[in-house]
Amino acid sequence: MIATLQFTTLLLAVIVCRATQDYAYKDVEEPTLGDSQYGSLWPLPQKVEMSTVAFKLSGASFQIVDAKESSSGASCSLLQNAYRRYDEYIFPISRMQGQNKEKAFASDVSELQVWITSADSECDSYPSVTSDESYELTVDSPVAVLKAPKVWGALRGLETFSQLVYEDEYGAKSINRTEIQDFPRFAHRGLLLDTSRHFLPIKVILANLEAMAWNKFNVFHWHIVDDPSFPYMSRTFPQLSQQGAYHPYTHVYTPSDVKMIIEFARLRGIRVVSEFDTPGHTQSWGKGQKDLLTPCYSGASPSGSFGPVNPILNTTYDFMAMFFKEVSTVFPDAYIHLGGDEVDFSCWKSNPDIQKFMAQQGFGTDYSKLESFYIQRLLDIVTTTNKGYMIWQEVFDNGVKLKADTLIHVWKGNQQQYQAEMARVTASGYHTLLSTPWYLNRISYGQDWQAAYKADPQDFNGTDAQKKLVVGGEACLWGEYVDATNLTPRLWPRASAVGERLWSDKDVKDTNDAYSRLTKHRCRMVQRGIPAEPLFTGYCAHEYKGV
Amino acid sequence: MIATLQFTTLLLAVIVCRATQDYAYKDVEEPTLGDSQYGSLWPLPQKVEMSTVAFKLSGASFQIVDAKESSSGASCSLLQNAYRRYDEYIFPISRMQGQNKEKAFASDVSELQVWITSADSECDSYPSVTSDESYELTVDSPVAVLKAPKVWGALRGLETFSQLVYEDEYGAKSINRTEIQDFPRFAHRGLLLDTSRHFLPIKVILANLEAMAWNKFNVFHWHIVDDPSFPYMSRTFPQLSQQGAYHPYTHVYTPSDVKMIIEFARLRGIRVVSEFDTPGHTQSWGKGQKDLLTPCYSGASPSGSFGPVNPILNTTYDFMAMFFKEVSTVFPDAYIHLGGDEVDFSCWKSNPDIQKFMAQQGFGTDYSKLESFYIQRLLDIVTTTNKGYMIWQEVFDNGVKLKADTLIHVWKGNQQQYQAEMARVTASGYHTLLSTPWYLNRISYGQDWQAAYKADPQDFNGTDAQKKLVVGGEACLWGEYVDATNLTPRLWPRASAVGERLWSDKDVKDTNDAYSRLTKHRCRMVQRGIPAEPLFTGYCAHEYKGV
Repeated sequence: MIATLQFTTLLLAVIVCRATQDYAYKDVEEPTLGDSQYGSLWPLPQKVEMSTVAFKLSGASFQIVDAKESSSGASCSLLQNAYRRYDEYIFPISRMQGQNKEKAFASDVSELQVWITSADSECDSYPSVTSDESYELTVDSPVAVLKAPKVWGALRGLETFSQLVYEDEYGAKSINRTEIQDFPRFAHRGLLLDTSRHFLPIKVILANLEAMAWNKFNVFHWHIVDDPSFPYMSRTFPQLSQQGAYHPYTHVYTPSDVKMIIEFARLRGIRVVSEFDTPGHTQSWGKGQKDLLTPCYSGASPSGSFGPVNPILNTTYDFMAMFFKEVSTVFPDAYIHLGGDEVDFSCWKSNPDIQKFMAQQGFGTDYSKLESFYIQRLLDIVTTTNKGYMIWQEVFDNGVKLKADTLIHVWKGNQQQYQAEMARVTASGYHTLLSTPWYLNRISYGQDWQAAYKADPQDFNGTDAQKKLVVGGEACLWGEYVDATNLTPRLWPRASAVGERLWSDKDVKDTNDAYSRLTKHRCRMVQRGIPAEPLFTGYCAHEYKGV
Repeated sequence: MIATLQFTTLLLAVIVCRATQDYAYKDVEEPTLGDSQYGSLWPLPQKVEMSTVAFKLSGASFQIVDAKESSSGASCSLLQNAYRRYDEYIFPISRMQGQNKEKAFASDVSELQVWITSADSECDSYPSVTSDESYELTVDSPVAVLKAPKVWGALRGLETFSQLVYEDEYGAKSINRTEIQDFPRFAHRGLLLDTSRHFLPIKVILANLEAMAWNKFNVFHWHIVDDPSFPYMSRTFPQLSQQGAYHPYTHVYTPSDVKMIIEFARLRGIRVVSEFDTPGHTQSWGKGQKDLLTPCYSGASPSGSFGPVNPILNTTYDFMAMFFKEVSTVFPDAYIHLGGDEVDFSCWKSNPDIQKFMAQQGFGTDYSKLESFYIQRLLDIVTTTNKGYMIWQEVFDNGVKLKADTLIHVWKGNQQQYQAEMARVTASGYHTLLSTPWYLNRISYGQDWQAAYKADPQDFNGTDAQKKLVVGGEACLWGEYVDATNLTPRLWPRASAVGERLWSDKDVKDTNDAYSRLTKHRCRMVQRGIPAEPLFTGYCAHEYKGV
């Protein structure tokens, strides 16, 4: 056994100079770059004991295998795929070039044994909000052991194991003796991408799912349609994308695309929660579905433009019932996000039929009552599909009656306002998700990951019981200003800050330590092929190869 | 002759929905997207007469050729390379796939004849600040003619010609009958990239030179070294990059790299002006050159850290003479940028030898006099190499005596301050360049290209004679937060706004028309392989293929 007492992370070494931020204004205090005792781990596991004893790993002899005792075996392709993936991350060059094949150096650590401890590994299931993602990792010589009740924890532990491996000055892979016990602080750690304002090619979505797994995110919130375009190809209503997509076949997601994305995500322990936002944000729906939207009036006659979904026609609800029946089978996740935000009442107000309906129902001039009327019926429809639902906070604010398992998604206001909203939502006994401080589409100059990092979803006035109703949060990258050209570097590593906040212990908040680890973590993402942008002046040993 | 009366730009068609900017705050007024009468031309030529008569172009029969009367022929590889490049831009798919080879459709326009009208085409020269970039373009059937006194104008005209070509609904290429007379408003239209804060792989530099040509930029200001790293490999002082680069061979520019970049730029009519900034911004120089930097003192003894270049040692000037002698041969351009900005006096103040020198020279405690002393000697040294120089505004502000052909580069302050500075500089009879409003590293949420677009370098209080001393300007992308992962989408099409401001007539300032043309221009850049980011919600017919 060769053991060195040095913990070097040359593979991911980054020099960040403390030069003055010339030509720029100091917007944020720059954190100091030191070496974290936790190397390049991101997000930080709940409990880490890392020794200075280092073991060598040889690409020729090291392998990831099922533990004999594991309830999961060769038939679990989710794990087999993950072994192959992490093998390639750990030995990106040596295996590909077959360099070490002739000189079969012995590894101090010859195997990582993956041991699924519960009878049902859940290998062929979809992840859910109750999935067990915990794991224990023991790195020792001659074997390392990764124990997890379910495959979901094994996936998280494999990522952690890969983050422990580093390269010494001679390019040799090493790993220190380590004990890790880990589990997520929050069950819902999401990322919202918007494929309506700009179409995102499949390749971009898959690359970002990959990066999500590296950051232990577990929910892809797919804001798939909205006003500008309707790229979801519906089997039941093909006209929706035929007319509503930017282009009927180059800018759509076919049923096969959707299936592939869901499976790619599942293999990484990521849920795909689709959002079909109504009654607002539906301009693109109207192109392929006659009479779905409210005709707006200019004085006594229709103006030719359309408003939100028309809530007074039975055909609307017939359509929604059929549409969400399809959606509930296409997307296996137990939840659907139903939107419900930002309904503009001006068109409804202009329409004489709507006015008549308001009077009949006794709504007076309170159009939020009409909105609630619509949402209530929609929720009833979706309930028949046996799905749970998530909705934006306005639906709660408007007093719509909701099922107890509804997730209220908080996105509005400044810090004081969103904290008050979290308090109100949880005081009403609802589960909640936070996004307000994590609107990553809003960029600013400098190290804005720090503001995202400092926000905490349980930081509001409330009882312990209320805090427990916080299921997690989501980073959101709305699509006005991003497409395939700039989405990925704009998202990473800024979203990584949210990833750690939602996974690690609430006391993990040392910005300097985070800066050190995140700088290395971003270089690792770059080396794995994702153009994650730099946090500050410096370099990666392996720079991005694209343009 | 097939002539249609439609001017469609389906190839570059972009639908930008006027949806509310949901989930975002309105920072800037969104311009309206209409169709510009100028199609996708960017920057707008000085004089355009475009008819609605459209001609067909067939990839199988159309070609770009030297006009018989041209003073430039097959031996001019600059033009031959450009013909090949533009042929590929105009027929990106059909030629590559050889689709049209069998069915040789006739073109309404069968040739673009390129006619260099002056006896010396300057084909084998380097471009300079006095290069003639004017051209006249006549598109008619059966031939189009591009007349230019020099190759530089021909390059600009080829780009314009390629921008006139569009695709109809059936994918057929068309071009309208057009007359263009064009020349740049300013002779110096630069882009600064910083390869010290982050190393930029050659590939990234070349891609951005390519994009510069599409936007009619003609100066690459290469801020090659600075505090954080010294990637320039010097033949005379190899230790500078050996010790000062982030990595001695993966993060350096070898003499061959530099040569290649200069030639690649020349072929596109782009000058390469190198900046070796002293006496500040030189931390990385000190690593490979003993005694070059000033030792800082803490009380009576050296603190171990170093300040600006040591201006009191003869060895400093010996080094500078040898170093700039090399630089003046490596970079053929007539100008060198000598920096001279942001000199921090605290280290000089702490050093007893410097204090003694100050007393001897009678400088009192005015360290700007010491700075001027250094700069004056440096300028004398560089003058012996027969180069002109550019310097940042501080050198002028400090009253250093400058040669009459010196270019003062204005970069500081708010609008009022930089306009006052432009007035002072030109009142003193110096030529000047503006950069303050074009620090594109400073990002903000929304359509910030508009602010860059609205700035005008001649917008200050001064006489016509003063205005004529404005040579142009430069967009700057300082490197704190950009590297290969995010530089290109962050730069384009934001820098395009500066490109039009510096090329087109000063009255070209209709933001709505610009928005329409720029939206199409950015899709064209994407189709040519550059990940130029979107201006707003919408799509390109051909989305970016990378991640």
